[in-house]
Amino acid sequence: MSIQTRRQNASVGVMPLIALDRKSKLPLHKQIYEGLRTAIVSRALDPGQRVPSSRDLAAELRVSRIPVLNAYAQLLVEGYLEARTGSGTFVSAELPDAIALTNLRPQSDAHPILSGARRIAERTRLLPAREPVPWLHGWGAFGLHQPALEQFPHTIWSSLVARHCRNPHVARIHHIDPLGSMRFREAVCNYLRASRGVRCDAHQIMIVSGSQQALDITTRVLLNAGDPIWMEEPGYRLARSAFLSAGCRLVPVPVDASGMDVAAGIRICRNARAAHVTPSHQFPLGVTMSASRRMQLLQWAHKYGAWILEDDYDSEYRHEGMPIASLQGLDPHARVIYVGTFSKVLFPSLRVGYIVIPPDLVDAFTAGRLAMDIVPPYLHQEALADFIVEGHFARHIRKMRTLYRERRDVLLHCMESTLHPTLEISGSETGMHFAAFLPEGYDDRQIAIRAAEVGLWLWPLSPSYANTQARHGFILGYGSTPAKTMPRAVQQLCALLEANKSKPRGRPSHSATV
Amino acid sequence: MSIQTRRQNASVGVMPLIALDRKSKLPLHKQIYEGLRTAIVSRALDPGQRVPSSRDLAAELRVSRIPVLNAYAQLLVEGYLEARTGSGTFVSAELPDAIALTNLRPQSDAHPILSGARRIAERTRLLPAREPVPWLHGWGAFGLHQPALEQFPHTIWSSLVARHCRNPHVARIHHIDPLGSMRFREAVCNYLRASRGVRCDAHQIMIVSGSQQALDITTRVLLNAGDPIWMEEPGYRLARSAFLSAGCRLVPVPVDASGMDVAAGIRICRNARAAHVTPSHQFPLGVTMSASRRMQLLQWAHKYGAWILEDDYDSEYRHEGMPIASLQGLDPHARVIYVGTFSKVLFPSLRVGYIVIPPDLVDAFTAGRLAMDIVPPYLHQEALADFIVEGHFARHIRKMRTLYRERRDVLLHCMESTLHPTLEISGSETGMHFAAFLPEGYDDRQIAIRAAEVGLWLWPLSPSYANTQARHGFILGYGSTPAKTMPRAVQQLCALLEANKSKPRGRPSHSATV
Repeated sequence: MSIQTRRQNASVGVMPLIALDRKSKLPLHKQIYEGLRTAIVSRALDPGQRVPSSRDLAAELRVSRIPVLNAYAQLLVEGYLEARTGSGTFVSAELPDAIALTNLRPQSDAHPILSGARRIAERTRLLPAREPVPWLHGWGAFGLHQPALEQFPHTIWSSLVARHCRNPHVARIHHIDPLGSMRFREAVCNYLRASRGVRCDAHQIMIVSGSQQALDITTRVLLNAGDPIWMEEPGYRLARSAFLSAGCRLVPVPVDASGMDVAAGIRICRNARAAHVTPSHQFPLGVTMSASRRMQLLQWAHKYGAWILEDDYDSEYRHEGMPIASLQGLDPHARVIYVGTFSKVLFPSLRVGYIVIPPDLVDAFTAGRLAMDIVPPYLHQEALADFIVEGHFARHIRKMRTLYRERRDVLLHCMESTLHPTLEISGSETGMHFAAFLPEGYDDRQIAIRAAEVGLWLWPLSPSYANTQARHGFILGYGSTPAKTMPRAVQQLCALLEANKSKPRGRPSHSATV
Repeated sequence: MSIQTRRQNASVGVMPLIALDRKSKLPLHKQIYEGLRTAIVSRALDPGQRVPSSRDLAAELRVSRIPVLNAYAQLLVEGYLEARTGSGTFVSAELPDAIALTNLRPQSDAHPILSGARRIAERTRLLPAREPVPWLHGWGAFGLHQPALEQFPHTIWSSLVARHCRNPHVARIHHIDPLGSMRFREAVCNYLRASRGVRCDAHQIMIVSGSQQALDITTRVLLNAGDPIWMEEPGYRLARSAFLSAGCRLVPVPVDASGMDVAAGIRICRNARAAHVTPSHQFPLGVTMSASRRMQLLQWAHKYGAWILEDDYDSEYRHEGMPIASLQGLDPHARVIYVGTFSKVLFPSLRVGYIVIPPDLVDAFTAGRLAMDIVPPYLHQEALADFIVEGHFARHIRKMRTLYRERRDVLLHCMESTLHPTLEISGSETGMHFAAFLPEGYDDRQIAIRAAEVGLWLWPLSPSYANTQARHGFILGYGSTPAKTMPRAVQQLCALLEANKSKPRGRPSHSATV
């Protein structure tokens, strides 16, 4: 049936069924609009069909003409109706034929009809699904990456935030530098030069939302899909996700007591385009990369034109010896992209970190960042710049270093007296966590799930391995556990290990944990 | 020369040159450590060479033994030195031979040596470089996407921010839901259902940093490299960047007075995997997509298994007719990913936006988001949830709608009386900007550069076209220009056009503007 025929056949007198609710908060004109639109879209009214005059519809609905005229005007603007001079108002003849659109009320609770191909990107399929594992959610004993929030100077911090919130500078609120606020970048730059031995100036610094965004931007700007990248084995699972999501090929390179085994990396895949390392405090084993390995790595990168992603996620808290200078500061060839975060010193949900970019790559990173999220938010940058410049940051780090060292010492002492030799400790010199290996016969994930039932948050070690020779153990955080509650937590851990000793280990599990 | 020979030859008595500065803030042990490390890395001391005893070095430097012992201890830990029982301390024999590391002082200002291949990703090369164009940076008359900041309730806002900053809940500060705070998502959901006709529940909402991150996440989660995507022509340049950076193939589809020409899209590339549209207020032309086109688009997406990215960037401010219901609310098959932002209602540097995800894709988006930046920052979410729930948001929108309509009316009136018919206006029904076409013979970029010299921020239209049939004109913002200063700004614009009338247009420019 052609539109022409249908138009002639269309009964002019038929009123669409519009149910008005005079008690509804929705104004009458909107109810009429919704009713007509639904009638049109659901084909209760055909394309080309004439609709009643506004006078007739108003009479039928027992309302004044005003809301009807408003509804018609809106439907004309949106193209559901069309006016023909001298002959009235019609359902638009151009609406597609045989359209299968139903359930059109905007606030309907009807489930959508998920028919047809629902394809997603191949790279998304490679990412681990998010498992609802308990250790990611609990707060307290052994929770990973949990700073001592109760010690944070919230009053000072909130007064700095309020300062910039109450009196916003248009210039700052409107700034659109994809690298971030220059004032804040200068503060970060001075801190990194003085405390981390990073060679940089403020123009090389990009403010991001944390280490993860730093890795994501770096990978996307520098690496093509299919490019091989060295990953520490064991290593940081979410870093793996960043590289997978850019389509990179992961090359696990073993970590020993001196850090990533660079010679092994060269044997396995000398032409990798990049290496991701945590040289100050390897995640999860906690070892420090030796000077020899650092130089080997820099030499390899220079020779093969590869990039090094130095992920310096928690080196502020060094408990033994001096802070270890960054790999970036050792590199004369600007092969290192240095990545850090404020998550550990302030708190994770702040979402502020930084990238130190080799000077010749700043333009490429800027273009990449614009495509991803344009600029970082302004408020935290301004408050954090003050927090650093006014000395609160350095004071807080000093205070926390003492506190975390105490918590670490108590934890180590308790573990040695009750758990030795069940758990073998690795990498306790730095940070807010260390690794503890289990002997054969224990399943770390199983124990972690039981531990959550008694309020202990054990991060299992085995999922940190990409290949099948996973060692079982835990990554134990001590940042959020006061020293006086530590002995009890260790006793609980001890009891758990005792209770789960004889369990058969079963197949090591490598499924997703985040 | 083997390490063994060299070790025997190494003169035990030779002291490395370490310049101590007793007035420096750097402690002595750190100066000694730096001096030795530099000597080792720069090969002033050879691998395997014996270093002086701590006693000798202390005597030589005229310091006590303590700082020397500290420095040695650190260099031992880091692997630059090794101790051999009974024979003293040596430069590590394992340091790589012939390493070309120079300029190693961390705080040196020396430029890095950028030798070797410095490859970046292919996708990065496709992105437009950031040009220092003036219209991106100025604040005031005709500036695009500039809300009336002086009208924003900063006092209320900062008290809400302070409320969550002073009294942080561990549960919220620690929340790690990659989709964002549930309390905030519920507030957004209720707003979208009531005001935008979006069909959703809070579980489908992901909080992001704005429209750009929304497009970036959506593209990466759903589309493979090489997938064709329909783009409005003319369209939003940064959206193009998001798709390019995911490796997608851009398919420009013309926009007419009814929005994207869907039939043309089908003719050009029916198998596109997605379409990006701004149906409420097309950017930059300002037109509203007609009902017929909306249905055609939904029908195409359903038939071909394509996704629709509905970018609803500024539909809060509708000046004529009722707000137009979202495309998402019309779609029974959950083919639409709906994207919005708080940048226009609050301010751009807040960096808060949202995605409404089809229910079956929530897990894939969650996995993608974890790989990109884990979670959104917490503070603004909590403050904005209160801002919405306590009614400030709706009140501010109502107030601004009146204000912007007044500014728009004054601007249109001034333009009609002085610039008609030089500028042809398009899409003034909604938002905080409209488009104005220039007749032949004008070059919009040239004029925009001159305009900046007199403090007018004209966003040229021609760079919004991806192909060569660019029309010249301006995208004129009126959000940040008070009504009383509008006449003068229009007079200035008028004078500029007069002065640049006879200029030859030259080749239309398509180079990057952001």
